[in-house]
Amino acid sequence: MTRLVNRTHDAKARSFIESANQPGGDFPIQNLPFGVFRRRARQEAERIGVAIGDQVVDLRRAAGHGLFSALGSEIQSALAAPVLNPLVALGRPAAAAVRERLFDLLAQDGPSRNNVVDCLAPAESVELLLPVAIGDYTDFYASIHHATNVGSMFRPENPLLPNYKYVPIGYHGRASSIVVSGTPIKRPMGQIKGDVAADPVFGPSRSLDYESEIGGYLVGGNRQGTEIPIAEAESRIFGLCLLNDWSARDIQAWEYQPLGPFLAKNFATSVSPWVVTMEALAPFRVPGFDRPAGDPAPLPYLFAETDRRAGGIAVATEVYLSSARMRAEGMAPWRVSHASLASMYWTMAQLVTHHASNGCNLRPGDLIGSGTISGPEKENRGCLLELTWRGAEPVTLPTGEIRRFLADGDEVILRAACERAGAARIGFGECRGVVEPA
Amino acid sequence: MTRLVNRTHDAKARSFIESANQPGGDFPIQNLPFGVFRRRARQEAERIGVAIGDQVVDLRRAAGHGLFSALGSEIQSALAAPVLNPLVALGRPAAAAVRERLFDLLAQDGPSRNNVVDCLAPAESVELLLPVAIGDYTDFYASIHHATNVGSMFRPENPLLPNYKYVPIGYHGRASSIVVSGTPIKRPMGQIKGDVAADPVFGPSRSLDYESEIGGYLVGGNRQGTEIPIAEAESRIFGLCLLNDWSARDIQAWEYQPLGPFLAKNFATSVSPWVVTMEALAPFRVPGFDRPAGDPAPLPYLFAETDRRAGGIAVATEVYLSSARMRAEGMAPWRVSHASLASMYWTMAQLVTHHASNGCNLRPGDLIGSGTISGPEKENRGCLLELTWRGAEPVTLPTGEIRRFLADGDEVILRAACERAGAARIGFGECRGVVEPA
Repeated sequence: MTRLVNRTHDAKARSFIESANQPGGDFPIQNLPFGVFRRRARQEAERIGVAIGDQVVDLRRAAGHGLFSALGSEIQSALAAPVLNPLVALGRPAAAAVRERLFDLLAQDGPSRNNVVDCLAPAESVELLLPVAIGDYTDFYASIHHATNVGSMFRPENPLLPNYKYVPIGYHGRASSIVVSGTPIKRPMGQIKGDVAADPVFGPSRSLDYESEIGGYLVGGNRQGTEIPIAEAESRIFGLCLLNDWSARDIQAWEYQPLGPFLAKNFATSVSPWVVTMEALAPFRVPGFDRPAGDPAPLPYLFAETDRRAGGIAVATEVYLSSARMRAEGMAPWRVSHASLASMYWTMAQLVTHHASNGCNLRPGDLIGSGTISGPEKENRGCLLELTWRGAEPVTLPTGEIRRFLADGDEVILRAACERAGAARIGFGECRGVVEPA
Repeated sequence: MTRLVNRTHDAKARSFIESANQPGGDFPIQNLPFGVFRRRARQEAERIGVAIGDQVVDLRRAAGHGLFSALGSEIQSALAAPVLNPLVALGRPAAAAVRERLFDLLAQDGPSRNNVVDCLAPAESVELLLPVAIGDYTDFYASIHHATNVGSMFRPENPLLPNYKYVPIGYHGRASSIVVSGTPIKRPMGQIKGDVAADPVFGPSRSLDYESEIGGYLVGGNRQGTEIPIAEAESRIFGLCLLNDWSARDIQAWEYQPLGPFLAKNFATSVSPWVVTMEALAPFRVPGFDRPAGDPAPLPYLFAETDRRAGGIAVATEVYLSSARMRAEGMAPWRVSHASLASMYWTMAQLVTHHASNGCNLRPGDLIGSGTISGPEKENRGCLLELTWRGAEPVTLPTGEIRRFLADGDEVILRAACERAGAARIGFGECRGVVEPA
């Protein structure tokens, strides 16, 4: 097993920042996710931060105070950057060293407390930014439940295509339009063709949807023409985030043959501001997908015994919806569905190895998406297309409002966390977006 | 018409660099394409250059000599960059001003000749690099001849899908693996499934192919959520290049359903080092594709009268092949096919407008590919898949060697030029790549 349980996973550890010790919080001292922020009230440059309780640690300032001097000049210089890329490029051990040092600094009996306190900013006072300059973004399709549901609607006799159980299906997404949580999402225009219409029309999408996914930022590092063996692939994943792959189903249905989705998805993709490191997730590793009898074994390049035994990650995902009327009436967001990253047919390591198996070079800060995370039950369906079965089974909000797809003013909120007995809860924060009119 | 014929299009203009005045050359004084280079013998930083005859003008050095001081500090600073992006971001008028100033400086009776001569490097002494830091790369499918040929092989009764004449079909490609001409191309490994085999195997592609395309670097500049009207789209295209969209047909056939090509293409894409500006191409504008009676009119967002009248560009493209044995025997590369960018169903402006029509933000230096450029005749087929009809009609090289797809050691050479009576020839140089074993 690769649980790597060390002192940073001690569930009893507490921080001198009391808000980090509250049960049920996303950001205890065992988490320490990385992001990029600036204080709203100041004219200051973007800087790397780490979330702890209701505070953000300013790592640029902390490095300036010499709090990371034992880690060497390369790491200190990376911590002064306005994006995570230089830190990501140093590989997982560098970020792990920063996290461990922060764990000690933020502990109840930590050293240099005055210097650390000087680097804190209340989370409510900061603007959280896109944490990584993303070079290439690839979205996968790794939930067999999602693939089967979607396939059932369009090909009832043959829901799963013959390649699905062999190929971790993926496609290239758009890097320029990835936005951080909180950015409004304008309903896209596009070509739409009704089932009986002779010609398409150009107009606002009438089937705007979300897709609840987990994203992974890559360390990269394989030269073009070289592969990443499956046993090494875990070392190329820096950390995970929430990802909403907004999708216009009507645009998608008309445009996607033969080259796949394009304008149906590239108008916007939302990510959470915090990147949860693979180190923080170590206590939540579970076996990879347990293939039913009769399913083919993964081809050898996609198989490692370590990955079979602990390639999965038990991240519980949730989707919440809040209509404009719900917010006006003071109602809390309504939970639409929940699922688990552990139910994916392919592990993140398999996605990385497959991606590089033809020699495609992955770069530090590249982003991969898991694909919509759905599970076996109706309550596990990670997008409205599945949940309402193309609109045939609409959902009813607490206000009595009906949804087949998203309405203007709807806010979609993705959340996720890892929880188990004997370990501190590791939360992902939120990934939010309000739909604006076309 | 948007021919904008000005002094830089005067076919009689000559340069004091005699090699630029030779008939049939790619780089006369009327062309002046931009690229990035460094001298092989020196330890020097990458710098922007312009091709003229058999020389390259070092624009960083020229700016240092004050030769562009009349154009302002923004442009001078952009000319000192190691990539074209800052110049591209300034928009087409900036590059046009640089080109016009260079035209005057390089003319037979140009001023400051000693300073200009001091900035020249023989083309054979320089290494040409990727000219642009490409953020996102999108590949289109704009040749109806290509789409019909490929469709005929896989769906004989229904070669063209119903969306083709309405939607400029495109997909996202991979930016990280775009390489400059001359970079060897390693044959990719991948999952391949024979027609009768039960399971796929992982191994070297046996159907490696090229695709002859023209690429366009974008000025970008639309904020996310805003469109680019068709009448403005031309202003967002900086210039054109040669592009080889290397494709592994066996990997593609097995992986591409339902999300499109992925590992079949993202192992490598080659581009030519020189970017030919839209200004240099102005004398070669022709009407956009003349749709046959019965074809639907473009939807209004894709139609502008100016684009219909002069949205096409008469770029003649050529593909040459050279096997290892041909080179060993001293044979010249053999011309496999030729076609014209003017035969594309969609203009470059239509591709740009469609791309941004859903609010997708385009950034300076983004690259779009035309898709394989094929014409109506067999000699116009821009990839081996079409030319050999999936291998059913192999081609025979001058050595007697047979090709269904590319063999190790084969070199693919793309060339293109614009020629017409009364105008100077505008060449694109070459885009080369040798296939290396897996």
